[in-house]
Amino acid sequence: MLIGANHIASHNEELLKKHTSKFAFTASEVGDAESIIQKLIDFQIAIPSWALGTGGTRFGRFAGGGEPRSLEEKIEDVGLLHALNNASGAISLHIPWDIPTDHNAIKALAAQHHLKFDAVNSNTFQDQVNAEHSYRYGSLQNVNKAVRKQAIAHNIEVIQQGIALGSESLTIWLADGSNFPGQLNFRKAYQNTLESLEEIYEALPSNWKLFLEYKCAEPNFYSTTVADWGQSYSYVKKLGDKAQTLVDLGHHLPNANIEQIVSLLLMENKLGGFHFNDSKYGDDDLTAGALKPYQLFLIFNELVEGMDARGMNHAKDLGWMIDASHNIKDPLEDLLQSVEAIMIAYAQALLVDRKALEIAQDENDVVKAQEILQNAFRTDVRALVAEARLRSGAALNPVELYRSLTVRKNLIGERGLKTMATGL
Amino acid sequence: MLIGANHIASHNEELLKKHTSKFAFTASEVGDAESIIQKLIDFQIAIPSWALGTGGTRFGRFAGGGEPRSLEEKIEDVGLLHALNNASGAISLHIPWDIPTDHNAIKALAAQHHLKFDAVNSNTFQDQVNAEHSYRYGSLQNVNKAVRKQAIAHNIEVIQQGIALGSESLTIWLADGSNFPGQLNFRKAYQNTLESLEEIYEALPSNWKLFLEYKCAEPNFYSTTVADWGQSYSYVKKLGDKAQTLVDLGHHLPNANIEQIVSLLLMENKLGGFHFNDSKYGDDDLTAGALKPYQLFLIFNELVEGMDARGMNHAKDLGWMIDASHNIKDPLEDLLQSVEAIMIAYAQALLVDRKALEIAQDENDVVKAQEILQNAFRTDVRALVAEARLRSGAALNPVELYRSLTVRKNLIGERGLKTMATGL
Amino acid sequence: MLIGANHIASHNEELLKKHTSKFAFTASEVGDAESIIQKLIDFQIAIPSWALGTGGTRFGRFAGGGEPRSLEEKIEDVGLLHALNNASGAISLHIPWDIPTDHNAIKALAAQHHLKFDAVNSNTFQDQVNAEHSYRYGSLQNVNKAVRKQAIAHNIEVIQQGIALGSESLTIWLADGSNFPGQLNFRKAYQNTLESLEEIYEALPSNWKLFLEYKCAEPNFYSTTVADWGQSYSYVKKLGDKAQTLVDLGHHLPNANIEQIVSLLLMENKLGGFHFNDSKYGDDDLTAGALKPYQLFLIFNELVEGMDARGMNHAKDLGWMIDASHNIKDPLEDLLQSVEAIMIAYAQALLVDRKALEIAQDENDVVKAQEILQNAFRTDVRALVAEARLRSGAALNPVELYRSLTVRKNLIGERGLKTMATGL
Amino acid sequence: MLIGANHIASHNEELLKKHTSKFAFTASEVGDAESIIQKLIDFQIAIPSWALGTGGTRFGRFAGGGEPRSLEEKIEDVGLLHALNNASGAISLHIPWDIPTDHNAIKALAAQHHLKFDAVNSNTFQDQVNAEHSYRYGSLQNVNKAVRKQAIAHNIEVIQQGIALGSESLTIWLADGSNFPGQLNFRKAYQNTLESLEEIYEALPSNWKLFLEYKCAEPNFYSTTVADWGQSYSYVKKLGDKAQTLVDLGHHLPNANIEQIVSLLLMENKLGGFHFNDSKYGDDDLTAGALKPYQLFLIFNELVEGMDARGMNHAKDLGWMIDASHNIKDPLEDLLQSVEAIMIAYAQALLVDRKALEIAQDENDVVKAQEILQNAFRTDVRALVAEARLRSGAALNPVELYRSLTVRKNLIGERGLKTMATGL
Repeated sequence: MLIGANHIASHNEELLKKHTSKFAFTASEVGDAESIIQKLIDFQIAIPSWALGTGGTRFGRFAGGGEPRSLEEKIEDVGLLHALNNASGAISLHIPWDIPTDHNAIKALAAQHHLKFDAVNSNTFQDQVNAEHSYRYGSLQNVNKAVRKQAIAHNIEVIQQGIALGSESLTIWLADGSNFPGQLNFRKAYQNTLESLEEIYEALPSNWKLFLEYKCAEPNFYSTTVADWGQSYSYVKKLGDKAQTLVDLGHHLPNANIEQIVSLLLMENKLGGFHFNDSKYGDDDLTAGALKPYQLFLIFNELVEGMDARGMNHAKDLGWMIDASHNIKDPLEDLLQSVEAIMIAYAQALLVDRKALEIAQDENDVVKAQEILQNAFRTDVRALVAEARLRSGAALNPVELYRSLTVRKNLIGERGLKTMATGL
Repeated sequence: MLIGANHIASHNEELLKKHTSKFAFTASEVGDAESIIQKLIDFQIAIPSWALGTGGTRFGRFAGGGEPRSLEEKIEDVGLLHALNNASGAISLHIPWDIPTDHNAIKALAAQHHLKFDAVNSNTFQDQVNAEHSYRYGSLQNVNKAVRKQAIAHNIEVIQQGIALGSESLTIWLADGSNFPGQLNFRKAYQNTLESLEEIYEALPSNWKLFLEYKCAEPNFYSTTVADWGQSYSYVKKLGDKAQTLVDLGHHLPNANIEQIVSLLLMENKLGGFHFNDSKYGDDDLTAGALKPYQLFLIFNELVEGMDARGMNHAKDLGWMIDASHNIKDPLEDLLQSVEAIMIAYAQALLVDRKALEIAQDENDVVKAQEILQNAFRTDVRALVAEARLRSGAALNPVELYRSLTVRKNLIGERGLKTMATGL
Repeated sequence: MLIGANHIASHNEELLKKHTSKFAFTASEVGDAESIIQKLIDFQIAIPSWALGTGGTRFGRFAGGGEPRSLEEKIEDVGLLHALNNASGAISLHIPWDIPTDHNAIKALAAQHHLKFDAVNSNTFQDQVNAEHSYRYGSLQNVNKAVRKQAIAHNIEVIQQGIALGSESLTIWLADGSNFPGQLNFRKAYQNTLESLEEIYEALPSNWKLFLEYKCAEPNFYSTTVADWGQSYSYVKKLGDKAQTLVDLGHHLPNANIEQIVSLLLMENKLGGFHFNDSKYGDDDLTAGALKPYQLFLIFNELVEGMDARGMNHAKDLGWMIDASHNIKDPLEDLLQSVEAIMIAYAQALLVDRKALEIAQDENDVVKAQEILQNAFRTDVRALVAEARLRSGAALNPVELYRSLTVRKNLIGERGLKTMATGL
Repeated sequence: MLIGANHIASHNEELLKKHTSKFAFTASEVGDAESIIQKLIDFQIAIPSWALGTGGTRFGRFAGGGEPRSLEEKIEDVGLLHALNNASGAISLHIPWDIPTDHNAIKALAAQHHLKFDAVNSNTFQDQVNAEHSYRYGSLQNVNKAVRKQAIAHNIEVIQQGIALGSESLTIWLADGSNFPGQLNFRKAYQNTLESLEEIYEALPSNWKLFLEYKCAEPNFYSTTVADWGQSYSYVKKLGDKAQTLVDLGHHLPNANIEQIVSLLLMENKLGGFHFNDSKYGDDDLTAGALKPYQLFLIFNELVEGMDARGMNHAKDLGWMIDASHNIKDPLEDLLQSVEAIMIAYAQALLVDRKALEIAQDENDVVKAQEILQNAFRTDVRALVAEARLRSGAALNPVELYRSLTVRKNLIGERGLKTMATGL
């Protein structure tokens, strides 16, 4: 299914009057609306190929229908999102779930949908059929050199796939760790992992980045070998300039101050990018902004401040990606909600009166500093985000249009009810 | 495969000298060794039928070999454990994973292995093939009465199965809850759940118990409809005397004082039983005692004190069960380790000088009270636990014997390498 | 210092034009602005007498200046707040910090400032000079009956003070608990506490309420004798209809779903009231809404829904109070920020389209339910809150007026720089 | 009061028979008892000068009696502990609470008690009377250079004090941080702090170490400027070889894997030392080993393994110190309990069969690795610890002797009931 310009146009027409009035008011309140809108237009959030199907937990999965059955259909799904919001102009592939058979054909298809290939992702947390070695006891950390070699080779193959598609970064989420005290020698696990990463790093093209995620727990429940930002930082520092840390919002211990971590990684020039999602208890992988929208805003507040301080390009100099699981919602609707929440947080962060904030900080005027941030956050910026979509040919209300076009019903018609996307 | 008396005997003979000396020393230190040993002999911990295969996470599963392919083989596995430690004399079935085709045959098989049927468990957290309604949005809480009816009927069927096997309790772990704010009306979800539970309660035979578990999160990540002990308590209080709360150690928010909860539920006569496991981050379902052995001891300390205060029979008046997941260990070895850790904690709790503790508490002698508990915990009680096994015809060192008999290898020979047990 | 109608008037005049335009737009967006504004006007949040001075931690306290030196000056401070926002029309006293010498004079003074006396609070977590017994090992739980009697008598005296002032509720925050395993027999501590509470309950006038707080930890670090909502519920259920649970937002274990607790307590008719504050790590007692504004909104969402379902009066049928600590901000500015955040959350909750939400819930339309809540939360309601103030004779921007009138400087002039309020 | 050799001797004589028998058994079980005992004898744990009085919380303090009124009496108290256990042979001073007037006299007094001066500690979390600048908004991080200069000068003065006493390390616990979003620019706070630390580092004698603590929260409740091990690591890495990280067990987010952090810091040669205590909810500062003895053992397991791997001297190459608060126990009894728990954990770690563990790890034998650690932990090593005391002229049971000598009563007689030690 394709969403055409005519669908967008007639949808927008219907909502235009109300939008125009709201936008006019918002713009009058905000001051710098035009520059914010341009930044919103430029801002694109990659969609992970594994998040287009229904997610689940270890207790099971309640399948939805019309899931993409192939890489082609995954690209089509992201194309639908991008047509609706013009903010999802990239797809992040996961190897081996998404190995293209014909790279040129896949690139052409993506181009049709105006999509780029974002970071490619390796998978050494599951055993593949016919794999010689098992990752049961880890991959890059494994005490067995042969297992490490297999995992290194896989990562290098992922880089090759990425090169063929035009990606420029490799994201490594390493599930390696241990379930019980004594299982690992932490030091040796670290050193094995470092050595393995060095080999992978060697294989990176010069214009590539290696993003190293960290995660406090799951699937290992006693230790993780890249467990927190400090550990990721210590690895990427040793690896070199092309290696950076990737922050997934759900990968922290309870109560962690993520925005401070973001600020410090930026300061160290070691922040590579983001996996957006939200959570209450652990790595719940819920819709971005669904539980802690103020935290999302505070993170963007640090990003905007820190990137501006370094003269970075908001849209291009970090990797932005959603990494959520859609257990009980239509994945496409859920992704639209995530993108919207991210855009709102970004817009609010752009609204912060930086000069006034700096003064308040210099004067230790805590009350004022709080007012400045809250003032930005309490502002209703939805009309700015919608206006950005309007100007770039997308829908004023993507979820509403998605529903009125009965997209899911159509996809089920095309693909069937019992399809199942590769992924989690 | 069967473990015969001769296997046990020759194993014990080898270790006997060392054991005898250690036991003699321990008994001389302890004072009341005989009574403790008798209690240890009487204490039996049920094994869940779903924990005999390899467990996994949402990220995958690294299969082991020789997993039981049928209820018969599950019973055989528990039989092996019980032969080794004489402390696992019951199996807890999970319906629909373990529906017997011939109840009498199954009962006879269990009897051969000296096993009883502990609590039966219902499953409304997964959709069964051919089920008319889905539990995607909950079961006993569902806004749709037809779904609730299906879930109620299932629970009643589980009771019927339990009656046929000689069980005397139904354990309900309710995964119902919500993933996002707004999804549920908490009050109506509670009321629907209560109404459903009332219907199930009605179907209980007069000598049965209904155990209602609680869990703070997972698989739902915003709310759970029986989320904490207080919520379970409020349900079972309304249901009646046959309804009680079941405590699973992994189902609490970080830092919860579980031993206090246990004490208060006992006081209210609303503690029904336990699911033992251990955890660091969430419901990690690790081997009992593997991470927080002192917490396990403190829980048993409350159990012994509270049950004695009510004149309860330690072995019979509460339900004791393991509920762990074996992701990277041989499940049978893991279960042997769990049982050992539980027995050790129980033995240490029996060692506590209750009279001295009461005096210290009455005098607010905090230092002394701590010394009394630590004194019990720091005592090496393994020889007592081993002696209990020795006297009841089990192995002095179950894991060692299991390994020397190459049980897993034999099971793989019998059942194959690629079998997969029903369960998680 | 007094803030006069003329101060308010000239402040409002200056901001009026901008406000009027923003209010007009908001009202046009919202539909039911008039009814919301009336509810906001009626809603009053009590100010605790102990929060008018600088707070601190165990590591110290950085004193501000001009703190109230007497109950009279505390009333004057709350009067200042109320003059500014017309939403702080009550003061909650803490005995023995605030024992009036002349009740009629104090009542007259409060009346001048249009203030009522909210719940009175007892203090058995500190030893008073000349007290016969120490609360070192607890008060209502104490193993020593004489200590319990002293604590009961104190609570009854607090009720007497409250009666003399026109209060109608007693709030008991019980710091009782233990620091080490073994220190307490949990069951006996519970039973002693219950017995003590029963005696206090007996002394309540018929039109009074007893609010029983719970708290997971601090100042006791192993157990608290009223540790969670379930424990508070089990006490108040036994005490009778006049006893209810009071929820302090900072008193929960990490990740607790407070809004669900609120909903269920309301359902059980056992919710008595609130202590508002915000926190990230523990009972941080920060400004309400400063860290988790969406959580605050979700709590109000349950309150509005649940109170409406029971036909309760939002303004009168629960106790609303701030309980924060002002370690590095001017306490009065901090309190103004808290009240503003609470009003915003309340207004947003009033905005929720209840009918649509109910339909979405009945249809398990999770995406829609989320959109409905987020739609309310993302709306900028500040103009509604300001309009409520405007109509009731208060300031459009209380913090701004407070600063332009240099209130703190004046208070320092009147009271001195080194004053110190009684309290924490 | 002094505890003489005769007190020790007659106490030991009474317990000797029972001890000898228990020690003989333990030694026969353990294999390498002699070498363990020698290590235990060599191991000394510094006592902080601020922990000799009653501690408290922000809610108050329940004073004990006989607290040391001067640095001399603090040294006397540590001398008592050291006489009892011969394991507390150092005192760690806190400036400005413990500024000596006559350094030689103080050194002579300490020498009489066989005490060394461990790390000196600076205090920039409280304002001192007559201080020109306040640390209300931080010290080394402060936006105001004059405040930073004052804090730097203070640290340099602390170094001078330490030099005069023979200390060789400075411990900096930096309370700096923020209570509200917006209050700080994280990057600038980091940079100011780094610059300040560099100045202090410059003032270090060549044989000194600078230990930089980290802490997730308290007294600041939104951010801390040295919040986790990664942040401390990034500072000490920049400072130079003399700067290392200090780990305080209570300073972590919930569920943190501290033993992994310890192992990695050791690997990086950036572990400086420890502050021992225990906790359940936050920085509870309870007796070491009182809540999580297995965690304490696992930490020592990493320490022993990691120090041996680097050829380090257990007793000398890291800083060992208790940092607990004694809110309801006699501080001296509490410290004796802490030292005992630490010694037990250390002895258990020395018991671990390293060779077998390495093999199990190399074979991914998770069950075996767990058994090896649990085997060490479950061994009753108290007789080894007692034997170490016996051989070095200390008491077999320090708490018992302390009580039978009625030390506290004597101290109250000497010093009075209402004394109050400087400190927290």
